[in-house]
Amino acid sequence: MPHTPQGSSLIGYEQAASSGSSFQAINPATNETLPITFYEAAQTDINNALTLAQQAYRTYKNTSPQTRADFLNKIATNLRDNATTIIKQAQQESALPEGRLNGELERTASQLELFARVVLEGHWRDVRIDTAEGQPDIRRMLGALGPVVVFGASNFPLAFSVAGGDTASALAAGCPVVAKGHPSHPATSELVAKLIVDAARDTSMPEGVFSLIQGAKPETSIALVTHPLTAAVAFTGSGKVGRILFDAAAKRDTPIPVFSEMGSTNPMFMFPSALENADALAQAFAASLTLGAGQFCTNPGVCVVIDSPQARTFVNKLAQHVTGQPTASMLNSGIYKNYCNALELLASQEGVSFVGDMPVHDDAINAGGHAVLRTDASTFLKNHSLQEEVFGPATLIVYCQNDAERLQVAEHLHGHLTASIHANEAELAAHTNLLSLLSDKVGRLIFNGFPTGVAVNHAMQHGGPYPASTDARFTSVGSAAILRFAKPICYQDCPDSLLPPELQQANPLNLWRLVNGKLAQH
Amino acid sequence: MPHTPQGSSLIGYEQAASSGSSFQAINPATNETLPITFYEAAQTDINNALTLAQQAYRTYKNTSPQTRADFLNKIATNLRDNATTIIKQAQQESALPEGRLNGELERTASQLELFARVVLEGHWRDVRIDTAEGQPDIRRMLGALGPVVVFGASNFPLAFSVAGGDTASALAAGCPVVAKGHPSHPATSELVAKLIVDAARDTSMPEGVFSLIQGAKPETSIALVTHPLTAAVAFTGSGKVGRILFDAAAKRDTPIPVFSEMGSTNPMFMFPSALENADALAQAFAASLTLGAGQFCTNPGVCVVIDSPQARTFVNKLAQHVTGQPTASMLNSGIYKNYCNALELLASQEGVSFVGDMPVHDDAINAGGHAVLRTDASTFLKNHSLQEEVFGPATLIVYCQNDAERLQVAEHLHGHLTASIHANEAELAAHTNLLSLLSDKVGRLIFNGFPTGVAVNHAMQHGGPYPASTDARFTSVGSAAILRFAKPICYQDCPDSLLPPELQQANPLNLWRLVNGKLAQH
Repeated sequence: MPHTPQGSSLIGYEQAASSGSSFQAINPATNETLPITFYEAAQTDINNALTLAQQAYRTYKNTSPQTRADFLNKIATNLRDNATTIIKQAQQESALPEGRLNGELERTASQLELFARVVLEGHWRDVRIDTAEGQPDIRRMLGALGPVVVFGASNFPLAFSVAGGDTASALAAGCPVVAKGHPSHPATSELVAKLIVDAARDTSMPEGVFSLIQGAKPETSIALVTHPLTAAVAFTGSGKVGRILFDAAAKRDTPIPVFSEMGSTNPMFMFPSALENADALAQAFAASLTLGAGQFCTNPGVCVVIDSPQARTFVNKLAQHVTGQPTASMLNSGIYKNYCNALELLASQEGVSFVGDMPVHDDAINAGGHAVLRTDASTFLKNHSLQEEVFGPATLIVYCQNDAERLQVAEHLHGHLTASIHANEAELAAHTNLLSLLSDKVGRLIFNGFPTGVAVNHAMQHGGPYPASTDARFTSVGSAAILRFAKPICYQDCPDSLLPPELQQANPLNLWRLVNGKLAQH
Repeated sequence: MPHTPQGSSLIGYEQAASSGSSFQAINPATNETLPITFYEAAQTDINNALTLAQQAYRTYKNTSPQTRADFLNKIATNLRDNATTIIKQAQQESALPEGRLNGELERTASQLELFARVVLEGHWRDVRIDTAEGQPDIRRMLGALGPVVVFGASNFPLAFSVAGGDTASALAAGCPVVAKGHPSHPATSELVAKLIVDAARDTSMPEGVFSLIQGAKPETSIALVTHPLTAAVAFTGSGKVGRILFDAAAKRDTPIPVFSEMGSTNPMFMFPSALENADALAQAFAASLTLGAGQFCTNPGVCVVIDSPQARTFVNKLAQHVTGQPTASMLNSGIYKNYCNALELLASQEGVSFVGDMPVHDDAINAGGHAVLRTDASTFLKNHSLQEEVFGPATLIVYCQNDAERLQVAEHLHGHLTASIHANEAELAAHTNLLSLLSDKVGRLIFNGFPTGVAVNHAMQHGGPYPASTDARFTSVGSAAILRFAKPICYQDCPDSLLPPELQQANPLNLWRLVNGKLAQH
């Protein structure tokens, strides 16, 4: 019998049984089925992963900042040391180019290192101490929420998958992670999971601090979200699935938070001054729109202009730049087909038409054609579906008659991750009502830039009002992402020796703390 | 025709129509129907209140810290200036003693002033600025979430009702408030609401920054929670109603956060050293248990001891102190009847019995009898209903055989607001596993104290894992309560002149800000 390569879930340090139903990934650039057979996790695997995670939580949540930082840094080192193997595998499973995956691996490692620094610095704990005379001594800090289920995203097989930003921020907060590998890249998921487990062993973390659940069935995802030991869920993907997970969690006997980051159309607003350099603007727009075959939650899918000869010149140039660029394979055939269908549906709406060349799709390599469409504001205002995300390299131009109509379009927007305004300072100053309105609708307002390319730092906000995400109060990118997995614990009149170091009177970790309402580092 | 005093909702500056169905409050100390007829809000009133609130939000969210602080301080002044009238009315509607209501009014005013200071100080905005070379300039702060619906609580007719902590923290965050008056104290609600509206006018706030909805029907509450313009909900009350509101919000097209603070049984753990002063401990416990007729979410409803002669002495003394104290009218006949029924149900459970005198209830004045009950750990572990809240002056002693069984009891606990441990430092040091376990189960761990009496400061945590509250990540008491009504907004490469002052380079508000990962006040 020939050797059949196989994979399965990784429960703590143990490989789960290779039995039951199975699935195989497909190379989207060739439609070829990849050789490894992956076995779907059984309910027992899910129970075991979460029981181990809960046990691990009891000690992991109390680990010192240095211990936790060492673990995160070791994962980063392991990823960098195995970059070639990981990237080769991810290329086969995602069709993303090597250069992009190189960058993504570096970003993944950097994110882990950022969270190691966040843990060491300790600002995230939001330590508060009140010691008013005649009142009880009250000390409060943020601690770990409990085991977190992280869903790997298809469009970032490294940076928002098994060892991505969700995992890094949950581990940093002191939460064990049960990662659900995306079925489009199971072998990449397994490679990365094993490196996390290696790092856990090498830095003496409790078994169960990390597990990987493999699966392609919706039931497996629901079983993870509804497991009584799951304390929170992070997901990046479609609005449909994100809402299903949110609903399943809300119906639990004990509801838990679900952070679904579901993408958006990231409206662009182009003012006359920006249209003066129509060609450069169109070129930059086209680059943002077609980057990664348009498979970013921050893809600029709607562009609002006031109708003018300059606006039309810009739109025509945009169509030339967009449709002229070579297409690329999408992440999997499902995403490719959804894109083709969503684009067809969008183009079939009354009052919507293509600008320039029609998109040319290529089924053989799952490459979706680039597209620029147009409509007018009154159509946009009547048809709410026009601002729904078309995941791929397509954008819809919305022509307004005047300022008032543009304001109506802004007012009509539902939640998006970002909005971008291309305008000079005088134009902006004359339209502060538009800025104020947009600041309610999005998580990030961008000036004279494009939404793709999300900096990973302390101030980044990647999230927005529903349906961009299920919780506009949090971000999934940047150091503030740790706050999703934290909850306060407060000690009243606790003997100093029994307090966590963060709260002890002597401040051994040298944290900034809010002492009687004033920030102090003592 | 004789004059019939009447009341209705207050929509912005306008009194709603006095028509449709109506209700009257009842004095729980006499069972006498109070004279004023209150008209239930119609759907139109709710629509108008939220439409005005949304309009107000557009400007109110951008008011300066000083403007907003002036508004909050003015409400506090108005309350103090009208204390006599308010307290007289609240006494009739709640049967709470004058002394308690005096204290509560002062607490309500102090809370408003605390939030005025919080707004001026600006720490809550969590300003983050990243300006790395070659990267976009990213600036992020917390801002107002949108119109907040606040449900007045029956057990704090001032401090957690119309102008209570929820309203104060929402207004501080820049969110207009639509308050739902509790039907037990509609006249108190109206008096307070008018003072808020007066303060809003006097400080030139936009109309709609505050409205009061009166009503006694569940449909009115659901209409508020499901209104498309409602951005968040705060509620203090029973687990049943708290969950109904949470579920209604989760099912919305656009889900919104619901902060239901639903109370708990606040387990007490008594160690041998504490039992040495059995009488003093029993007396302090009895005072905490019977305070305000036991009508606090922090009432100590469960007490865990290891069986010993000293423990039995303590329990007997507790029963003497508890049952010997005079009873008092409860907040309304519904709460009184629920208490009698819940107590009867608890006492009828297998393995549960009364200690000392049986409770004596008084229907004529709605006064629930004080009660101490007992059970053993194995019964407690088998019957999950034994840790459910009995809202009133009753506590259940759980006798354990040994340390291991006590740990099992702790492990078995669901979420509670608090847990209290009475022990000396050596005992605590020998049982850090118990402390660590309890820190997952509650929001506040109290040492050698009782849970009633919640300090209003920066470090307080009043909230806990479900079913204590629907969101363990937030507090409803203390300055951190403002974070419930805040969401981040992030500006990328925004011209300095167009940034909110909090984010401007010159730091005109002199805030502490996280600049490139380091806290700085420049």
